[in-house]
Amino acid sequence: MSVRLTSPGPTLGVVGGGQLGRMLGEAAGPLGIEIVVLDPTPDCPASPVVTDQIVGEFGDPDGLRELAERADVLTFEIELADPELLETVHEETGVPVEPSPSTLRTIQDKLVQKRSLAEAGIPVPEFRRVDDVEELRGAGEELGWPLMLKARRGGYDGRGNVAVDGPEKADDAMAEIGGDAMVEAFVPFDRELSVIGVKGDDTTDVFPVTETIHEQEILRETVSPPRIGGETDRSEIERRAYDVASDVLDQMEGRGVYGIELFEVDGRILLNEIAPRPHNSGHWTIEGSSTSQFEQHVRAVMGWPLGATERRCPTVTSNVLGDTDESRPAELTGVETVLGASNANLHWYGKREVRPLRKMGHVTAIGEDPDALLKRTRDLRDSVSFETTNEP
Amino acid sequence: MSVRLTSPGPTLGVVGGGQLGRMLGEAAGPLGIEIVVLDPTPDCPASPVVTDQIVGEFGDPDGLRELAERADVLTFEIELADPELLETVHEETGVPVEPSPSTLRTIQDKLVQKRSLAEAGIPVPEFRRVDDVEELRGAGEELGWPLMLKARRGGYDGRGNVAVDGPEKADDAMAEIGGDAMVEAFVPFDRELSVIGVKGDDTTDVFPVTETIHEQEILRETVSPPRIGGETDRSEIERRAYDVASDVLDQMEGRGVYGIELFEVDGRILLNEIAPRPHNSGHWTIEGSSTSQFEQHVRAVMGWPLGATERRCPTVTSNVLGDTDESRPAELTGVETVLGASNANLHWYGKREVRPLRKMGHVTAIGEDPDALLKRTRDLRDSVSFETTNEP
Repeated sequence: MSVRLTSPGPTLGVVGGGQLGRMLGEAAGPLGIEIVVLDPTPDCPASPVVTDQIVGEFGDPDGLRELAERADVLTFEIELADPELLETVHEETGVPVEPSPSTLRTIQDKLVQKRSLAEAGIPVPEFRRVDDVEELRGAGEELGWPLMLKARRGGYDGRGNVAVDGPEKADDAMAEIGGDAMVEAFVPFDRELSVIGVKGDDTTDVFPVTETIHEQEILRETVSPPRIGGETDRSEIERRAYDVASDVLDQMEGRGVYGIELFEVDGRILLNEIAPRPHNSGHWTIEGSSTSQFEQHVRAVMGWPLGATERRCPTVTSNVLGDTDESRPAELTGVETVLGASNANLHWYGKREVRPLRKMGHVTAIGEDPDALLKRTRDLRDSVSFETTNEP
Repeated sequence: MSVRLTSPGPTLGVVGGGQLGRMLGEAAGPLGIEIVVLDPTPDCPASPVVTDQIVGEFGDPDGLRELAERADVLTFEIELADPELLETVHEETGVPVEPSPSTLRTIQDKLVQKRSLAEAGIPVPEFRRVDDVEELRGAGEELGWPLMLKARRGGYDGRGNVAVDGPEKADDAMAEIGGDAMVEAFVPFDRELSVIGVKGDDTTDVFPVTETIHEQEILRETVSPPRIGGETDRSEIERRAYDVASDVLDQMEGRGVYGIELFEVDGRILLNEIAPRPHNSGHWTIEGSSTSQFEQHVRAVMGWPLGATERRCPTVTSNVLGDTDESRPAELTGVETVLGASNANLHWYGKREVRPLRKMGHVTAIGEDPDALLKRTRDLRDSVSFETTNEP
């Protein structure tokens, strides 16, 4: 594969301009690749760091056609992109869409996603389709309580997922999700892990396994390498995680980065969920790897050679989530502590409004001991707040 | 110092939108700081990665006023900025200019720069003002040949500097420079070094000393740490370099990053030149330090806390210079070798035209042994070319 750099460089059209689009923009600059995003929010997070934003809904045909006309390749940074429309625009314009819209379609529907992975022999928690409260109760009798009830479509950052402790909670849970759902058997995992995989033109690769820590179904911290006791245990668990990730990548169609979330339970690896895009659990690669997941995604979708994925050193990230009770203009205080810290970096997403538990930024720290790093990164994150006092 | 992050963030107005402006833009995104540049070239290198470009000459009063109206702080990435105009616009608008225009004025004129540093007791090579060929010959008799003849203003990347071997070359050299010049005694240096210094709100700091390698007066490679034999020698030389850098920073007015170029000769340190901005010899900090010189400049001029400046690991950079005989549209071939290399990164500046010896990008490699890294980085750089064959 031979690559020529030109000026202006090739243009990547991205459906979505949230924080992932912003970090794609930050990564594309050094490669000489220009980015145009399609996003409904004027001045979306990506806007200040990319060549241009087209203001339009993710499913707006005219917006997507305009994006395709300006782009050499199309990709998406949000599952709300419309696979049918992407296929239509691809057929109309000939502009490649990576990863494949068919993969997006499969992943968008969590039930279809799980079925296709299970059929491919990838180990997943037991699951059932449930469309009403009766089916939910039936699934509970079959799989045992508690269960994880998930909306098939549109959930993210904890929305669309409800843990159901027992049959007496079924009504409330189903009302919250609203039908068209699935359940999964509860997995008493020892640890949650993530592998960021990538499919290139004719090769696949993975970034090192990373531990993920969730609370209320929202990712809070990542620890890379994961804190698995003993080098033998570690390498064996990691090998199994790479095996599952590799099997998953074989099922995906189209180039790009995939976030592969895993459960580690009794030394076994189960697949949790897949995202066909850069993933929050891979933000550590910005400082922690020579090639970040964002640079890797840009390289992959453009058909360029993939970059090296080694871990430079132990790296921990912690999300800065909205800690307010209500929506209000975003104003983060206490930032001087993070800015002044050694071997730590701040990433601010530029969202105009803070909302409860909204992902507003993240803090990364590099060092040696993962436990110490995790404590340090949590302390740094705790030093910032969206809650303001009235003191001068 | 307390820092609040908001959306939209504060805006930094930058005079100049070349590669330094581009890398400032790439560094500002994660901090939530927006950048607007003033540059005469439409679609200048910074343009795709910053919020906006105002197209105008560096000395265009209307352009600079517009920049000031949109900015919370003004800075410059090129010495061709106009200090008088910056002062006027600062007085008119109240927008701070960092570093101080008076420092820019002093540095712009190499003779005034050297005089002020010499007066402050900073060790510099012997120098004389020379306005014509007679004065040049006189200086040669006094200081000995060869001499370095330098235009007082406007030189960069080797332009405006001519080595003069003896009196018989004086006419040609003076004709090339065109009067209004200075000469410096030739320094038989053992090594050239660079320290990137920074002045913050109430503190100064330095990045680790770096070796610089020039050819035809143009920086080719940087090696950090410098290859100084023996740990004792190294720490002593480094200490002296930091002492000189610290004395230089004391003479500078205003916040920001300063590139401080040094000669090491017989264990002594002499100051060569200063740049009141991020400098080519500091590009290694993007991968080699937790805080890059670009992030550091943004932090400093905004009045934010400075970041940590430790070297993460040995880091070498090599410039990708125009290797064509004439100007033509920029098209770099062979890039797959750099993209596929482990622990190496490409930085493309997005200039539309390649010209002989023009700085078009750079390659960075990280590792352990500086000598091996230098060889590797040179090999990577040599794998790319602007010369195209007619082969398919």
